[in-house]
Amino acid sequence: MNIDDIPRPTVKRLSLYLRQLKQLQKDRVKTISSRELARLLDTSDAQVRKDFAYFGAFGKRGVGYHVDELTWNISDIMQLNITRKVIIIGAGALGCALANYKEFKNKGFIISAIFDSDQSKEGLQCGKLRVENIKNMRKYLKSEEISIAIIAVPAGSAQDVADAVVEAGIKHVLSFSPVSINVPGTVQLRSVDLSLELEQLSFGM
Amino acid sequence: MNIDDIPRPTVKRLSLYLRQLKQLQKDRVKTISSRELARLLDTSDAQVRKDFAYFGAFGKRGVGYHVDELTWNISDIMQLNITRKVIIIGAGALGCALANYKEFKNKGFIISAIFDSDQSKEGLQCGKLRVENIKNMRKYLKSEEISIAIIAVPAGSAQDVADAVVEAGIKHVLSFSPVSINVPGTVQLRSVDLSLELEQLSFGM
Repeated sequence: MNIDDIPRPTVKRLSLYLRQLKQLQKDRVKTISSRELARLLDTSDAQVRKDFAYFGAFGKRGVGYHVDELTWNISDIMQLNITRKVIIIGAGALGCALANYKEFKNKGFIISAIFDSDQSKEGLQCGKLRVENIKNMRKYLKSEEISIAIIAVPAGSAQDVADAVVEAGIKHVLSFSPVSINVPGTVQLRSVDLSLELEQLSFGM
Repeated sequence: MNIDDIPRPTVKRLSLYLRQLKQLQKDRVKTISSRELARLLDTSDAQVRKDFAYFGAFGKRGVGYHVDELTWNISDIMQLNITRKVIIIGAGALGCALANYKEFKNKGFIISAIFDSDQSKEGLQCGKLRVENIKNMRKYLKSEEISIAIIAVPAGSAQDVADAVVEAGIKHVLSFSPVSINVPGTVQLRSVDLSLELEQLSFGM
């Protein structure tokens, strides 16, 4: 199975399975049936079995899946057993909060630098990180192997920042900008629009 | 058309249309065709027309949609022309950043209070807001009309906080917790798992 052949909705569910499995590990649960896992994730056991079959994980009748084994398998196929370096552009309150978000580190994502275009922020501390001038970003990206850029700048400069990181060779971008940004087809972009989440809750109130 | 009859994917797109339309307003664009709007949102013009038909907005042949009118219509159906009060539970870096996130206010969401269970944080400032003791939350929710609770606490206490806000009568919850939380069927829950977004980008690198 080539990982590119796994459908995106399955990939999304793999993250959710993994989150649940790690909780089960904490609770010292050793095995779990597809039915129970399906119930915890609000899906069907047929879906669970189908998702896992993509990478050859098959539960045993009467036993189910071994939690540790399944956790390792999913982490492996999602390449989460590797540490990845991430930079943040935008050292506002949100960017700084993201720079110090502990769950990132727990999942193997290391925030290695934070940049801002505001010269007056240069040298300030975001937790343990020093805010760097965005002018130094390109040079930094040449010297360090960075997997992902997180964009946490205001709407007005989001596209310019996206263009700059793409030009510097970044292939994976997570944007917190409240506007649509465009990247070439070779770059993978995910967007989290915080206001949009509230809007969606607001609908139908 | 009862708004509950509008499919969720359409509701999600309404937010995206709106975001785009507001950009067009800024750019002083007066009218837009379904085809152009579809292109900007990476969907089909048939989809755009179908989405808008749910609430009776029909473009004129050769003219398209009036940007201002369409913006107002979508805002109205999504009830975004109303100001809504929101509380945040969790006054860590992320909660504080959310409390001061300007886009919320721009969209009519007013963060009216922020609570934390850590007594040592009580009285500290998150921007203009004073951190309140979570023990006072219930009383506060009785005296104020709060639409939405944002949960920005660590994984371990997310479910307890969710239970507390639900018990206090909150019907709409936005969770930033990195664990699944359970709420009754009468409560609308949306989750943003920041690590999960990075995981999804990581997949297939």
